Amino acid sequence: MKTLNYDHTAAAPLDENVFLKMMPFYREHYGNPSSGHSLGSVPRQALEEARGQVGSLINAEGRDIVFTASGSESNNLAVKGMTSVNRKKGNHVIASAIEHFSILNPLKTLQKEGFEVTLLPVDRNGLVDPDELRRAITEQTILITIQAANPEIGTLQPLDRLVEVAREYNIPVHTDAAAMAGWLPLDVQKLGVDLLTLAGDQFYGPKGAAALYIKRGTRLAPLVEGGIQERGLRAGTENVPAIAGMGEAARIALEDMETRSAEIASLRDQLWEALFRNVPHLHLNGHPEKRLPHNLNFSVEFVEGEALLMRLNMAGIMVSSGSSCTSQALKSSHVLKAIGLPPELAQGSLLFTLARSSSAGDREYIVDRMKEIATLLRNMSPLYHQFLKEDKLNARVQ
Amino acid sequence: MKTLNYDHTAAAPLDENVFLKMMPFYREHYGNPSSGHSLGSVPRQALEEARGQVGSLINAEGRDIVFTASGSESNNLAVKGMTSVNRKKGNHVIASAIEHFSILNPLKTLQKEGFEVTLLPVDRNGLVDPDELRRAITEQTILITIQAANPEIGTLQPLDRLVEVAREYNIPVHTDAAAMAGWLPLDVQKLGVDLLTLAGDQFYGPKGAAALYIKRGTRLAPLVEGGIQERGLRAGTENVPAIAGMGEAARIALEDMETRSAEIASLRDQLWEALFRNVPHLHLNGHPEKRLPHNLNFSVEFVEGEALLMRLNMAGIMVSSGSSCTSQALKSSHVLKAIGLPPELAQGSLLFTLARSSSAGDREYIVDRMKEIATLLRNMSPLYHQFLKEDKLNARVQ
Repeated sequence: MKTLNYDHTAAAPLDENVFLKMMPFYREHYGNPSSGHSLGSVPRQALEEARGQVGSLINAEGRDIVFTASGSESNNLAVKGMTSVNRKKGNHVIASAIEHFSILNPLKTLQKEGFEVTLLPVDRNGLVDPDELRRAITEQTILITIQAANPEIGTLQPLDRLVEVAREYNIPVHTDAAAMAGWLPLDVQKLGVDLLTLAGDQFYGPKGAAALYIKRGTRLAPLVEGGIQERGLRAGTENVPAIAGMGEAARIALEDMETRSAEIASLRDQLWEALFRNVPHLHLNGHPEKRLPHNLNFSVEFVEGEALLMRLNMAGIMVSSGSSCTSQALKSSHVLKAIGLPPELAQGSLLFTLARSSSAGDREYIVDRMKEIATLLRNMSPLYHQFLKEDKLNARVQ
Repeated sequence: MKTLNYDHTAAAPLDENVFLKMMPFYREHYGNPSSGHSLGSVPRQALEEARGQVGSLINAEGRDIVFTASGSESNNLAVKGMTSVNRKKGNHVIASAIEHFSILNPLKTLQKEGFEVTLLPVDRNGLVDPDELRRAITEQTILITIQAANPEIGTLQPLDRLVEVAREYNIPVHTDAAAMAGWLPLDVQKLGVDLLTLAGDQFYGPKGAAALYIKRGTRLAPLVEGGIQERGLRAGTENVPAIAGMGEAARIALEDMETRSAEIASLRDQLWEALFRNVPHLHLNGHPEKRLPHNLNFSVEFVEGEALLMRLNMAGIMVSSGSSCTSQALKSSHVLKAIGLPPELAQGSLLFTLARSSSAGDREYIVDRMKEIATLLRNMSPLYHQFLKEDKLNARVQ
């Protein structure tokens, strides 16, 4: 049987060059970068090389990059670290309603500690309105955190315009760019953001390495306190192999970003067209154009998502029902709710994330299986039969 | 030239079996353990296998293990997580004065937030007195955190007796066992600790994977909030290769722990004897018997530690001046200060950490170089010349 992986959320096979880059740091150059002697020097150089490479990906300097273990950790560090040092200036934080849980949950904790949190609504395509942001700003606002792209529905925020508003009021901006970095150009200088989250495992780098860009002069309290690693902003022995791998992945991503992303977007568009043409009652979720090139999220009406996932899996097609952080919890998606998708559509949603292994040759197989499975499941669905009945009635009436 | 690595603090070459265990999770089984489909199942199984293996190392069940990215993160999670949920019960924490900075620095932060912290003194061998602990306990004490073994001077605490005291007052105990786990038996059931930190890179596992044992029923606030990974106690995509590697390292450590540790302790003792016999004015730091089998810390009188390190490095002997988290900061050691070592001895201290690559064949070379270098540096030392003068004077007087 075929195995077609269309679920690459934090799960892509390592780029071969990334793998080769990492290997020496497991056995040969296993030294601790903090050690004073010569066994520390190669790991130390690797760390600084990676810092430069990750910086280049977003047009920052290496010294503005702090390595962490995951995008979630970077997000926590940004939100908790900023609010902790600026507590005296105000107690209000603004975010979008469709942030990742590693932003939303820390914000809930802050609320318990007396912070006010405004979650900006999004339109039906998932966009935040800069005017809404402006209206939400108060004298107490000390941080705005809005994602660059949504990992679930792929929508790209108008970051430049949002940052512009924040700049007017001189409020620091963090952006969770984990889903976007490595796929589309990001320029922290041009954007003017103060903090930006990236994760290596989103662009063919290894799990276990992520980063937070911190604009020069921005004060931040560490989350993991202890040793002097990462300028005292993140204690703990550096995961040198993973960090070196993330650096290499950043270098490669920067090299062929435009070509790769255009190719994948085109594959994604063709896949969606074919699905939409052949399987009735599909609804695209997220912005039709302003979206991540590898993201395809749609709802299959009259079908229960988990059953669909299972059948697709049995047919060798691996997709996700949404965020990998919650899929096991079987919660309905806060993102789909925020774009106003009715529950019956939200629970039948599928997330395809493409990668360089995706190919046009997969399309026919995917479309055929989707058609079969949707028909099969719809035939078992009372909702669908009711719809057919009403549809016929409507036809007769007309 | 020879390269003799005697600095294995968080820097040992991976065990070959550990390396082999990790590799498939980079390229073949790269799936996200949280994903619902079949690509997630092998990584998910690996995660649970590792959980069981790490649990076994300390006689815990897998489900009581939470994976983190470093010993520092585990320590932060324990201290901040426990004090955060028990804030209403009291505001007092007890630790030893020689804890790792990933305990001491979070405690400093807690002090700023209104907590009282008592740092228990240690005797000249680095031992905490259980009676001192008893005296420090107040109605407000909500956490006692005392390390199992000191990574710098190797001293093993009388953990069983310390926990006994804590139990009398029903106060939860965390122990940072990062330096000890994998080297000496640890039994959380027998000890009765509530929280225990382990780090894979301390026992031939990879960097980037560590764990916190959490006794059933112990409530803890997460440090990295977000997804539902690790029972909601540590968000972020799991670093499957590193975790699988740590599990395998735990399995191997448990298998041959007694033999390996006895062998290394014997090598260490012989190295110390030879050094002590051949190089005058050496002082052992830490407990002479109750110490980690692979730890040797001593001071070289009349010599400046950094110069000694550099010369040894040039001779191919890699050692450390103390904690890898501070060696670059060139701070004097809080541990050596706490055991009452005079500054002139503390600044000339060396930390040898042995590993399975250490061999009796290295001894002569190390002793000869130490003798040469100590003589060379002492001849340049005004303190040494003054000592010689006084020594001669004393001899004449007697």
